Amino acid sequence: MEVRRIRELVTAGNAAAAAELVATLPPSELADLLLRLGPHELAALEPHIGSDRLADAVAQLDPSEAARLIVRFSRAEAADILEEMEPDDAADVVEELREEEAEELLSQMQPSEAEELRELLSYPPDTAGGRMTPEFVSISPDVTVAAAMRLIRAKAPDAETIYYVYVTDRRGHLLGVVSLRDLVIAEPQSTIGQVMRRQVIRLPATADQEEAARLLMDHDFLALPVVDDDGRLLGVITSDDVADVLEEEATEDIERLGGSQPLGEPYLRASLRGLFGKRVVWLIALFMAGTLTSAVLHSFSDTLERVVALTFFIPLLIGTGGNVGSQIVTTVVRALALGDVGFGDTWRVLRRELLVGMSIAVVMAVAMFIRAQTMGMEMNITLAVSLAAIFIVVWSAFVAAVLPLVLARVGMDPAVVSAPLIITLVDASGLVMYLNIARLVLGLD
Amino acid sequence: MEVRRIRELVTAGNAAAAAELVATLPPSELADLLLRLGPHELAALEPHIGSDRLADAVAQLDPSEAARLIVRFSRAEAADILEEMEPDDAADVVEELREEEAEELLSQMQPSEAEELRELLSYPPDTAGGRMTPEFVSISPDVTVAAAMRLIRAKAPDAETIYYVYVTDRRGHLLGVVSLRDLVIAEPQSTIGQVMRRQVIRLPATADQEEAARLLMDHDFLALPVVDDDGRLLGVITSDDVADVLEEEATEDIERLGGSQPLGEPYLRASLRGLFGKRVVWLIALFMAGTLTSAVLHSFSDTLERVVALTFFIPLLIGTGGNVGSQIVTTVVRALALGDVGFGDTWRVLRRELLVGMSIAVVMAVAMFIRAQTMGMEMNITLAVSLAAIFIVVWSAFVAAVLPLVLARVGMDPAVVSAPLIITLVDASGLVMYLNIARLVLGLD
Repeated sequence: MEVRRIRELVTAGNAAAAAELVATLPPSELADLLLRLGPHELAALEPHIGSDRLADAVAQLDPSEAARLIVRFSRAEAADILEEMEPDDAADVVEELREEEAEELLSQMQPSEAEELRELLSYPPDTAGGRMTPEFVSISPDVTVAAAMRLIRAKAPDAETIYYVYVTDRRGHLLGVVSLRDLVIAEPQSTIGQVMRRQVIRLPATADQEEAARLLMDHDFLALPVVDDDGRLLGVITSDDVADVLEEEATEDIERLGGSQPLGEPYLRASLRGLFGKRVVWLIALFMAGTLTSAVLHSFSDTLERVVALTFFIPLLIGTGGNVGSQIVTTVVRALALGDVGFGDTWRVLRRELLVGMSIAVVMAVAMFIRAQTMGMEMNITLAVSLAAIFIVVWSAFVAAVLPLVLARVGMDPAVVSAPLIITLVDASGLVMYLNIARLVLGLD
Repeated sequence: MEVRRIRELVTAGNAAAAAELVATLPPSELADLLLRLGPHELAALEPHIGSDRLADAVAQLDPSEAARLIVRFSRAEAADILEEMEPDDAADVVEELREEEAEELLSQMQPSEAEELRELLSYPPDTAGGRMTPEFVSISPDVTVAAAMRLIRAKAPDAETIYYVYVTDRRGHLLGVVSLRDLVIAEPQSTIGQVMRRQVIRLPATADQEEAARLLMDHDFLALPVVDDDGRLLGVITSDDVADVLEEEATEDIERLGGSQPLGEPYLRASLRGLFGKRVVWLIALFMAGTLTSAVLHSFSDTLERVVALTFFIPLLIGTGGNVGSQIVTTVVRALALGDVGFGDTWRVLRRELLVGMSIAVVMAVAMFIRAQTMGMEMNITLAVSLAAIFIVVWSAFVAAVLPLVLARVGMDPAVVSAPLIITLVDASGLVMYLNIARLVLGLD
C-alpha cells in the first residue's frame, strides 16, 4: 500500500520523501490519505503539499467530510485551501463548520474572496443561490468577437466555465448569452450583440436546486444563469452540479421510502447517535399507529378463541397487503419525483392501480386457497381467507395509490408515505376486514 | 390552450396556419403536441414542420415514447428525423422499435448514417458503447493549434461536443486530448502534440453505463472517450448522459427496493399487463416465503389456544421488526450503490447496525411494555412481548445489514433484497422467537 508507505515515512520524520510519493496520487486518493492521517502526521506533511493540490483533494469529498478534514489543518492553510477551491464548493464546506470556526477561517481569507463566500452563504444550500458559483465570464454587447476571445483567454484560469459567456449591461442585467462554440464559429469582427442569443433561460437565486438540475438536464445545458429579483446576474450553476443534486435527492427519497429520516451524509460518516435518532422517531410513530392492530385483535378475541386457525393466516394476509402497498407506493412516489405523474393524473393512477390490483387480488386469493387447503383447513375457513385476500389487496392498492398523490397535492413531500407507513396503515384495517369476513362466512354470532 | 387551437386549425384543413403556431413552441411542448395528435392530424401537419425541429422534439421524449411516435410519421419522414438526431439518441429510439420496423427505417436512411446506427446498436443500451455517440472531433498530433481551431469551426455544426478534441494516430488509437479551453489559451503556432494531455481516462465499449456516469461525475468531465480492445477511439459519452443514467439507475433501485421488478419506462406509459407481470412475480415469491408464518403458527396452535392474548401482539411485533429491517436495508443498499460502502466494510456495517439495533430494541421493548400494560395484560404476558421485541429488532437489524452485503459480494444486485423481502424473511423467524419466549416465560410445557 502506498498509503502505509507514506505514513511510515512521515512517522520516520522524512516528510519530504513522503511528499514526493504524495505528488503522484490523484486527488481522490490524496483525500482518502489525508482523512486517515493523525494530527501530527498531517501537520508534518502540510508544508510539503501545495494548497492547490490540497484544494483539489478536499473538493473530492462530501462537504461534511471536507469540513471535518479542513479544520485539522493550520488556520492559514485552511484559509488558503478555501481560496483555491471553486467558491460554490468552498461555501458548501464552510456551511458545515461550526459558526466560530467558519468566522475564523473567513477572517483569515483575502477580504474579496471572503466576501464572495459570505454572499453565497446567504442562500440556503439547497437553492439555486446556494449551488451557484460567482465565477463566470460576463461581457458587454458592444465588444467584438475577437475582443471577447481575448477576454476569455485572460479569464480562463479562474472561471469555472468558459463555455458560456454571459452578456450584461453596465448594471449587471442579463441580456443574452454566447457559447464558446458560437464564438469559435462567428466572424471575429461581429459584435457580441449580433451573435448572442437573447432568449436565456434563467433562474431566481431562491429557486429549488432540484428545479435547476431539471432545467439543465432537460435542455442539455452546460450552465444556467442565476439572477436576483431585478434580473441582475449573480452566478451560474454548472452541469457538474446536476449529478450531485440528483443523487442527493434520490438518496433522500430512498431513505424516506424505507421509513427513516434522510441521513444527509454518507452512511459510514453518520454518527451512531445520528442513525439512532433518524430511525427511532419514525419507528415510534409507526409503533403507535401499529398499536391499532392489537386493539382490533383484542376486540375480536372471542372469534380468535373459538377458531384459533384464523390466527395462522394473519401474518400472511397482512404481509401480502403490505407487499402490494409497498410496490405501488414506491413506484408512484418515484413517478411523482421524476415528473412522470402529476396532480392531474390522480384518477388515471387510481383507475390503473385498481384494475391491476383486482387482477393481483384474484391471483393472491387462489394462492391463499391452495395454501389453506394444503394445511388441511376446513372449506369455510379456506373461503374466508381467500375472500379476505381479495379485499385486503384491493384496499391496499387503493390506499397506496391515493395517499402519495393527496400528499403531493397539499404540498407535502410524497416520499414520507414510506412502505412501512402504508404497511402499518393497511395492517389494522386489513385485520378488521379479515375477521369480519371470517365471522360472516363461519356464521359466528 | 395553444394545443387546442392547433388541433382546430388542422381539423379545419388549415395546416399551414397551424404550422405557424407550431413554429413558436419549444421542443418539449412540440413533442407533447405530437403525441396527442391523431394519425390524420399528424399526416396533415408533417409536411409543414422541418425534420430538424421534429428531431429536436423527438429527442425530448423517453426512448419508448419516441419509438411510439416515430412510427406514426411517414417512413421517409421518420428516416429523416433519425438522421437529424444525435446518433446515440437515435439508436436508443431504434432499439425500442420492432425488428421489421427498425430494418425498414434503417434501409430508408443514408447508408453511412444507417451504418453508424447499426454499429451503435451492436452494443447493449446500458453499456458505454450503447450510450456513446460516434460524432466527435479527432485530430492528428502534428497539426498546429491554429489549424485545429479551423477544423473545429468546420466540424462544430455536426459534432455533439467540440469542447474536447481527441488526438489519434492514423489507425485511430487514442493518444491524448485537448479541451477547447486549452486551445483557446494556447499559442496558435504550437502543435497539438505539445499542448495535449497524454493521460486520458478512457472506457472500454463493454463497460457498464453506470461506471461511465460515475467517472464523468467524479472528474467533472464534459465527455469521456470510449475505446475498443485495441485502444482505438470509437466514440464519446457526454455529460448530458450522466443525469439520465443516474436517474435510470436510481429509479430501478427504488422500484426493486419496493419489491417489484423495475418497469424500465415511465409509469403512465407502462401497460397494465406490464405492471401486473412485474409485480405478481415477486408477490408470489414473497407469498411462498410467507407461508412459513402459517406453518409456524400452526405448530404453536396449542400455545395460542391456551393464551389467546398472545395473538394480539403478532402484527405489532413482526411489524416493528419489519420496519427496522426496511430502514436498514434501504440505507445500506443505497450506500452500496453510491459507493459509500463496499465489501470491505461488512464488519463495520454489522457492528454499527448491531449497536444502533440494540439501542432501538430497548426503546421498542419499553414501548411494547407500556402498550401491553395499558391493554390490561398480565405481567408475564407483558414481559414476554417486551422480551420478544428486543430479540426480533436485533435479529432484523442483523439480517437487513448482512444480506445486501453478502449479495453484493457474490455479484448479485443488492437491491433485490427489498424491504418486503426482509420483512417476509424476518416474519417467520420472529414468530418462532416470540412464541418460544412466551412459552418459557408463561411456563407452558
